[in-house]
Amino acid sequence: MFRLYHWPLDPAGRLVRLVLAEKGEVFETILSPAWMPRPEVVAIAPGAVTPALIALEGPHPFAASGTRAICEHLEETRPAPALLPEDPCERAEARRLWAWVEAGMEEVTDTLLTERVMQWVRRDRQPDSEKLRRGVHALRGRLTFLNALAEQSGYLAGRQLSIADLAAAAHLSAYDYFGDVQWDAVPDLKAWYMRVKSRPSFRPLLTDRLEAARPSPHYADLDF
Amino acid sequence: MFRLYHWPLDPAGRLVRLVLAEKGEVFETILSPAWMPRPEVVAIAPGAVTPALIALEGPHPFAASGTRAICEHLEETRPAPALLPEDPCERAEARRLWAWVEAGMEEVTDTLLTERVMQWVRRDRQPDSEKLRRGVHALRGRLTFLNALAEQSGYLAGRQLSIADLAAAAHLSAYDYFGDVQWDAVPDLKAWYMRVKSRPSFRPLLTDRLEAARPSPHYADLDF
Repeated sequence: MFRLYHWPLDPAGRLVRLVLAEKGEVFETILSPAWMPRPEVVAIAPGAVTPALIALEGPHPFAASGTRAICEHLEETRPAPALLPEDPCERAEARRLWAWVEAGMEEVTDTLLTERVMQWVRRDRQPDSEKLRRGVHALRGRLTFLNALAEQSGYLAGRQLSIADLAAAAHLSAYDYFGDVQWDAVPDLKAWYMRVKSRPSFRPLLTDRLEAARPSPHYADLDF
Repeated sequence: MFRLYHWPLDPAGRLVRLVLAEKGEVFETILSPAWMPRPEVVAIAPGAVTPALIALEGPHPFAASGTRAICEHLEETRPAPALLPEDPCERAEARRLWAWVEAGMEEVTDTLLTERVMQWVRRDRQPDSEKLRRGVHALRGRLTFLNALAEQSGYLAGRQLSIADLAAAAHLSAYDYFGDVQWDAVPDLKAWYMRVKSRPSFRPLLTDRLEAARPSPHYADLDF
């Protein structure tokens, strides 16, 4: 049994929720927005941020912050079902793409997603149109790359679902909440997303609703 | 026996060289600057970049790109000496800080280090003083954080050297080549760097010399 500190539309928290669910782990969630983190998160380590995971039972208290620390721990301690391929080359490729998604999508999250959150959730200010424009442009480039991978072999890092798929879907699902993913331009990626979105692990993400903003009409639609 | 494609002052390539050396692995290096990558790197996977590692022997050809894929592979297949702590909490903390270093230092690398390389190595243009200023400012903040960690327990993620230390030292050593690290402002980090810098694995990095630019006077000095 775990406790996860997260904010529902944060792509990093979404990845951890997907990995926990794929591994069949039971967990409760506690809201901890980046702009108002819970003291339990801050207490984990200097500079710790969400997503943060705490084990509620077991002889040794486990606490970790960040997707790399949390997901590698879950893969090491709960190897079945595997979310990294066994073959060393494919395993390296899944980790390369996972890292690519996190580094490459950061620009999109920092511009497009952050501006949407400012606009609808925090209602701090009108969105910065220059940032939105940069975010849309950056996202388009990332989608083209991911579409080419999905076309090649069905999943991003080969023929099986891996943490690279979950990381990419976690990010895209957050942008999709605000209707910012132009799926029709990337048909192979759209087919891939329909498959990933249909997994039981994805269901809780699709029922997320922010009080301040309704999701785009196709957000929870499995056949969009 | 491995072959590493890298560029000597790239912090990511430096981390892989340190991990290979700490693990006692023999490897040859081939220059592959980001602005003119070797075809063997590009052939690994769509969008593959340096550092890229290829195994030259063994039944299955191994090839990987990027620090997360390469270093996790080396830790999995060559567990001794361990560069991630055994205790799950400390292991997670080492991975959190490793991820923090790579994400947090990216801004410094993209501004300060890139401008130095443009200035001295490629001789493309005079450095952009606004970018240099931003890089210096970002580096100062990162140094303060790392100094607090070094003060706490000797190494960044506890009492033992981990991949978090090697990642941080790989980045700082590249900035230090151009004399951009103000060590006197961070005495605990300076003491930590002297210890890491004195390791045999570090020696090859300290003998790196760019034809176009000599290193700062204290670059290779173990007692600076």
